[in-house]
Amino acid sequence: MNFTCSKNDLIEAFNIVSKAVSNKSQMPILSGIYMKAEGSTLELQANNFEIGIITKIPVNTEEPGEIILTGKYLQEIVRKLSGEIVNISHDESQHVANIKSGGANFKLLSMSIDDFPKVKSPETFSSFSMKASTLKNLIRKTAYACANEEVRPVFTGCCIEIVGNSISMVATNTHRLAVMKDKINEEVDMPPIVVPSKTLWELFKMLDTSDLSNTVKIECSRKNISFTFDNIYMTARLIDGQFPPYDKVIPKESATIATINVNEIMETVDRVALISKETEHNTIRFIFSAEEGVNISSDSPEVGRAEEQISAKIEGPTVDISFNVRYIVDVLKVIDTEECIIKLNKSLSPVDIREKDRDDFIYVVTPVRTN
Amino acid sequence: MNFTCSKNDLIEAFNIVSKAVSNKSQMPILSGIYMKAEGSTLELQANNFEIGIITKIPVNTEEPGEIILTGKYLQEIVRKLSGEIVNISHDESQHVANIKSGGANFKLLSMSIDDFPKVKSPETFSSFSMKASTLKNLIRKTAYACANEEVRPVFTGCCIEIVGNSISMVATNTHRLAVMKDKINEEVDMPPIVVPSKTLWELFKMLDTSDLSNTVKIECSRKNISFTFDNIYMTARLIDGQFPPYDKVIPKESATIATINVNEIMETVDRVALISKETEHNTIRFIFSAEEGVNISSDSPEVGRAEEQISAKIEGPTVDISFNVRYIVDVLKVIDTEECIIKLNKSLSPVDIREKDRDDFIYVVTPVRTN
Repeated sequence: MNFTCSKNDLIEAFNIVSKAVSNKSQMPILSGIYMKAEGSTLELQANNFEIGIITKIPVNTEEPGEIILTGKYLQEIVRKLSGEIVNISHDESQHVANIKSGGANFKLLSMSIDDFPKVKSPETFSSFSMKASTLKNLIRKTAYACANEEVRPVFTGCCIEIVGNSISMVATNTHRLAVMKDKINEEVDMPPIVVPSKTLWELFKMLDTSDLSNTVKIECSRKNISFTFDNIYMTARLIDGQFPPYDKVIPKESATIATINVNEIMETVDRVALISKETEHNTIRFIFSAEEGVNISSDSPEVGRAEEQISAKIEGPTVDISFNVRYIVDVLKVIDTEECIIKLNKSLSPVDIREKDRDDFIYVVTPVRTN
Repeated sequence: MNFTCSKNDLIEAFNIVSKAVSNKSQMPILSGIYMKAEGSTLELQANNFEIGIITKIPVNTEEPGEIILTGKYLQEIVRKLSGEIVNISHDESQHVANIKSGGANFKLLSMSIDDFPKVKSPETFSSFSMKASTLKNLIRKTAYACANEEVRPVFTGCCIEIVGNSISMVATNTHRLAVMKDKINEEVDMPPIVVPSKTLWELFKMLDTSDLSNTVKIECSRKNISFTFDNIYMTARLIDGQFPPYDKVIPKESATIATINVNEIMETVDRVALISKETEHNTIRFIFSAEEGVNISSDSPEVGRAEEQISAKIEGPTVDISFNVRYIVDVLKVIDTEECIIKLNKSLSPVDIREKDRDDFIYVVTPVRTN
């Protein structure tokens, strides 16, 4: 194998596939980047069995062929080369790749092509498309709400549900629930699937460098989901298991309704959190009262106390309620309207937080019991 | 105690004294920031027994007094306050400080004033002054060469030696030596002292926010050194012990002399270091040859090989020599001339690296023995 290409193209392609490069040592081959030069195209692949990525760049192939090199070294070396053009050739008998650019000459040991699990496109049972911006928004509004622990694997992912042309993405860690809804351009018939949140965040980052008006094609099989956009193909494992019905978690009615400026409550919560994080359960206390607005406080016996009052439009009886501060900060960060609506019942009843005058985003959080 | 001041003044003062705040838990009082309000001045202190810092800011004192609060919380809270003006008062009977700004009200538990080791100015046996820029340069050119391990404590510091109006700062970890010389405006008579490199780096950072043309007053006692500049007083413990005579380490003559562009060798070494760092002793190999310039390479049996050739003016016999790459990178970073001079003898003889046409900076490094 022998090809020549632009250093910047190569760096960009490495940045893309490196998200699927594994750094765990159990299977060294998964730390590799696969490259196949043929005609005017270099195909690059990486696969860690959670996700697999393929991308392509233009090259000048002098001798077609395939090679696998350790992703870490390859990326570091190419990034530091002084020239604008890189030549990579492969001495197969010696298992050595030559990387040349400017006056630099690197030799890297290559790995065995046979061991590499090439990225496959499985047979799909349904496919649909949406704008990159829509997909990013679905992820941003929900994926943070997933569980981190693998106690119940299904909660480490987001559930994607499509009915007709309505799509919803749902995440929960059983203490809080985030739901985001949107429309797609076609009617799709498929069962709900659960995508690991880690996969969605990697996808989110990749979409960052993409034009948001571009279209992402999504294909689902029984065990996998794949995303095609720009010159990228990404496939990922689905999580096996059924997502519980979440509708019944959403409170049907509420006695107290607060309308609050999002920036103001966010800045205040951010300050009070300095004390909350020193408490046993990250506890922050809110007193919503029609007369006095919202009193936000936190007490730590070892450190001290924070207290702040903000104004708000509140209707209904006073509610004295405490939360894990992280669950409040997380949702305030993704609210895009100037004001948010907080719907409350009793001190220990789940609370519904939404954007004002919008119903496509729903967040439900369970309060913390305090003494 | 009760005073009001500008939030930004307070944040700046915390940034200064926090360098002497200890985060180790053995003596909680050392994690505190001491504040004393009197008239129009707030004095702030922190002391971790390695260094002690005093600074002052203008305030409006309503009730004079002293207080000690945990540095970490104090800094975080004040930084996040929304208002521009901060009021701090102290309820001594309850051991609680009230921090108010905008709508925020924080209460922080205060510590006992009696436990705090106030920063002292010991009696000094000699004092002198130099420009902040001179002091920074002495530190920058030498302190990185100190030992990290405390095997021989004296090598974890820089030796300051003054003869007449000539000052030199010297550092070594026994494998390499850095010496920087300069002039001061006065003749000083004092024995050599050894200042911990950690102290010098903290001082270096503090001088960063200072005007470089400002004067730093330096006072030495038998066990301490202090630096006074701007509104800062910093005192630090000296290291006990004698620095060995370093003059005899500097090679008297050299068979081969290379003149090399610093940027070019630095960039090349930086690339080859990607392989060096995977070798057992961080080894990088140089072949200096009058005919071919400098060949720079590194071999790792597990990863591969890097090799690059750069041009250089070389006089004398060819020398094939290997180093710990870090010892080369470190010195190249502080060389301020366009070209450097490398003076060599045999493969295992110490090497002298200097700036071209300047003799105030000397660096000597011992090669690595290879197979």
